[in-house]
Amino acid sequence: MKQEGNIPYKIYLEESEMPTSWYNMRADMKTKPAPLLNPGTLKPMTFEELTGVFCDDLVAQELDDDTAYVEIPEEIRSFYKMYRPSPLVRAYCLEEKLQTPAKIYYKFEGNNTSGSHKLNSAIAQAYYAKKQGLKGVTTETGAGQWGTALSMACAYLGLDCKVYMVKVSYEQKPFRREVMRTYGASVTPSPSDSTEVGRKILAEHPGTTGSLGCAISEAVEVATTNEGYRYVLGSVLNQVLLHQSVIGIETKTAMDKYGIVPDIIIGCAGGGSNLGGLIAPFMGEKLRGERDYRIIAVEPASCPSFTRGKFAYDFCDTGMICPLAKMYTLGSGFIPSPNHAGGLRFHGMSSILSQLYHDGYMEATSVEQTSVFEAAELFARTEGILPAPESAHAIRTTIDEALKCRESGEEKTILFGLTGTGYFDMVAYEKFHNGEMNDYIPTDADLQAGFDGIPKFPGNEF
Amino acid sequence: MKQEGNIPYKIYLEESEMPTSWYNMRADMKTKPAPLLNPGTLKPMTFEELTGVFCDDLVAQELDDDTAYVEIPEEIRSFYKMYRPSPLVRAYCLEEKLQTPAKIYYKFEGNNTSGSHKLNSAIAQAYYAKKQGLKGVTTETGAGQWGTALSMACAYLGLDCKVYMVKVSYEQKPFRREVMRTYGASVTPSPSDSTEVGRKILAEHPGTTGSLGCAISEAVEVATTNEGYRYVLGSVLNQVLLHQSVIGIETKTAMDKYGIVPDIIIGCAGGGSNLGGLIAPFMGEKLRGERDYRIIAVEPASCPSFTRGKFAYDFCDTGMICPLAKMYTLGSGFIPSPNHAGGLRFHGMSSILSQLYHDGYMEATSVEQTSVFEAAELFARTEGILPAPESAHAIRTTIDEALKCRESGEEKTILFGLTGTGYFDMVAYEKFHNGEMNDYIPTDADLQAGFDGIPKFPGNEF
Repeated sequence: MKQEGNIPYKIYLEESEMPTSWYNMRADMKTKPAPLLNPGTLKPMTFEELTGVFCDDLVAQELDDDTAYVEIPEEIRSFYKMYRPSPLVRAYCLEEKLQTPAKIYYKFEGNNTSGSHKLNSAIAQAYYAKKQGLKGVTTETGAGQWGTALSMACAYLGLDCKVYMVKVSYEQKPFRREVMRTYGASVTPSPSDSTEVGRKILAEHPGTTGSLGCAISEAVEVATTNEGYRYVLGSVLNQVLLHQSVIGIETKTAMDKYGIVPDIIIGCAGGGSNLGGLIAPFMGEKLRGERDYRIIAVEPASCPSFTRGKFAYDFCDTGMICPLAKMYTLGSGFIPSPNHAGGLRFHGMSSILSQLYHDGYMEATSVEQTSVFEAAELFARTEGILPAPESAHAIRTTIDEALKCRESGEEKTILFGLTGTGYFDMVAYEKFHNGEMNDYIPTDADLQAGFDGIPKFPGNEF
Repeated sequence: MKQEGNIPYKIYLEESEMPTSWYNMRADMKTKPAPLLNPGTLKPMTFEELTGVFCDDLVAQELDDDTAYVEIPEEIRSFYKMYRPSPLVRAYCLEEKLQTPAKIYYKFEGNNTSGSHKLNSAIAQAYYAKKQGLKGVTTETGAGQWGTALSMACAYLGLDCKVYMVKVSYEQKPFRREVMRTYGASVTPSPSDSTEVGRKILAEHPGTTGSLGCAISEAVEVATTNEGYRYVLGSVLNQVLLHQSVIGIETKTAMDKYGIVPDIIIGCAGGGSNLGGLIAPFMGEKLRGERDYRIIAVEPASCPSFTRGKFAYDFCDTGMICPLAKMYTLGSGFIPSPNHAGGLRFHGMSSILSQLYHDGYMEATSVEQTSVFEAAELFARTEGILPAPESAHAIRTTIDEALKCRESGEEKTILFGLTGTGYFDMVAYEKFHNGEMNDYIPTDADLQAGFDGIPKFPGNEF
């Protein structure tokens, strides 16, 4: 395998080079993301309103559009040292396999038991809950990565953890529950009959396989009706992107150290936590006009919020009990086909990323399931790592861009986020091996049904 | 979390500090391990006899008791760079949890898709098979780690890979098969009716859940009856311990760099590959009289080859078609209780380690299943990593030694091998959570039945 000059296969930062602050992209955005609205009054949610659902310090982070750098508390930095820095890997073997002149790098966030980047925000949110003296937290999980991450963080800090897991994932990933149990969490398939909103959804859609939006509603209900609990969310929110900026800052520090500058940055996008974290410091430079990068969000064709959604205020949850967020959305009633494997099932998208996309700072593309698993298998066989289906969306687009470089002869440097591992996704891989994968894409009529559920009010035209 | 001076949570070597040679403990042993014997003639197996089963270069390594350092071929070193160096981790959180003055370190070999250290030898064996121009290799796998590792190595080099998987593991770990399939391997539950020896074992023991010894017999039969195939083995053999020495050499390099000297070195022992690899350079110093270490092999109470076995010549496989090895053995007919979760199910033990144990260079202890999973869960909750049940044997004994330090106030430095992750062992974890774990230990009569199967001949008294 040819190795380029001084560039190792894996770049690990020293502990002393690890970030001491998170970076908040909003501070450098000329057009800030629109504020969360109270669905009753249609006025911006206040600190006081939000602290009924979320932890105080996290609400402060959620509402802070101005502070660029937020110091990472010492205890969180200690926890980060248990599994970070994560490696920035040069994909020498994939490059050779593709016979491309492109230089491919990936930031691998899967080397921890949660199997993904989700732990970066889980420990932060659990830390602030603990600091506030709470008993525990509630949350939803789709593919199970966030629930596992939160369970780990809560076990570490001695907090109770109640997880509502999207039913289709609960069934497809039977072992995820046991991992969360190992970390002491309780796990309930959603929709469940343990909440009012769950019972309502079950009554209306008896055969539903669930959705993130629905699981969110249940978790929020439990948090707001139990003393000493708050709700935490693994993606979408501004605070989550803030915490996840640790991914991008480490990546940029490592690249700067070796004089590497990416031309293209690629990440999968469900709610936007990984993508927002990976691109943060690069987007900062772009927003400040210091340097330009091509940034591509990759989403599943079965849940295409960027590429086919509306930019509008919408509910984050199916039960319509959460605040309204301005974002690219398919409507809170949209439930992706049960044939869609893995995560990236959320109907909406981070408000920050939505605004950046709307303002032309990034592109988006959608890819179909079979081609995603083909990319996953090729990657596994050449680079050794078995990717999560979510991550494989970014791999698909990376391979496509690298093949374009082969055509054009351009030596572009491509960076992508390898968010996690696929050890708990073997049911999906099995379907792929057996040729049972389904590439169903929502029709315009399917989408229209979702759009019809987006609330209409003056200023929310779409 | 208090952090000691300059000792990071995780010590990663630079690529340039990675080993360039493997170390062969036999070169420094005064009493060499006894040679493999031809079961027909009871004479030492010759190079020619062994090359019918194994690859030529690997047979040369198997028989070489004299060369201390064997250069690692460039292509293997390239592959190692994809997932190595593995981190040497300071277990600050576990130390705090246990309130022990002991300093605990672990070498974590689970950060690769095979989930264990097995990849270190898999790539070496696949490399030599490829170099010899073979079509493919056959093997057995117990817990599935070795089969996955070999599948990955074969996919990388373009070799065919046929895996015989112990039936109980095949059933307990349904997703392992899909991982191997992702890497292009074929997987057959053993005993199977696809081989003569498999059919014979099935006829004699219709309800058997299989054993490593039985799966070995099937894989060897397929290798020796198919043109262009050889058999490869993931543990026990001298060549495997040679390849696995990369674990210990990296560990010692990292410890030397920070001036750390372990007092106690602990590893789980099934066939001995991880333990033999981890201790190699330390044992080298001990054999040469340069420094003393306390070295402890930990085995399951349900398969206690060191602590309750006989030191004698015995078959490595149930079908009695392999050469005889002098080792601590429970008899090739011994099949551990199906209640025993995970790997470490082999009836014998590496000849090298057996000789070292016999000569007093190391100790051995056995631990029961429930206490192993208690240690695993404690470790997961404090250090974050979900350990493989195999690795948790070493964790159990490490915790016990650290608690002794708490009693005595001694600041001992303990090093243990964390061989892998438990993502595919959730059926076993589930049993533990549900209180269904069984601590069955073989009775003396059970063991005697196994010993009765050990071949009797002059010089093989036990």
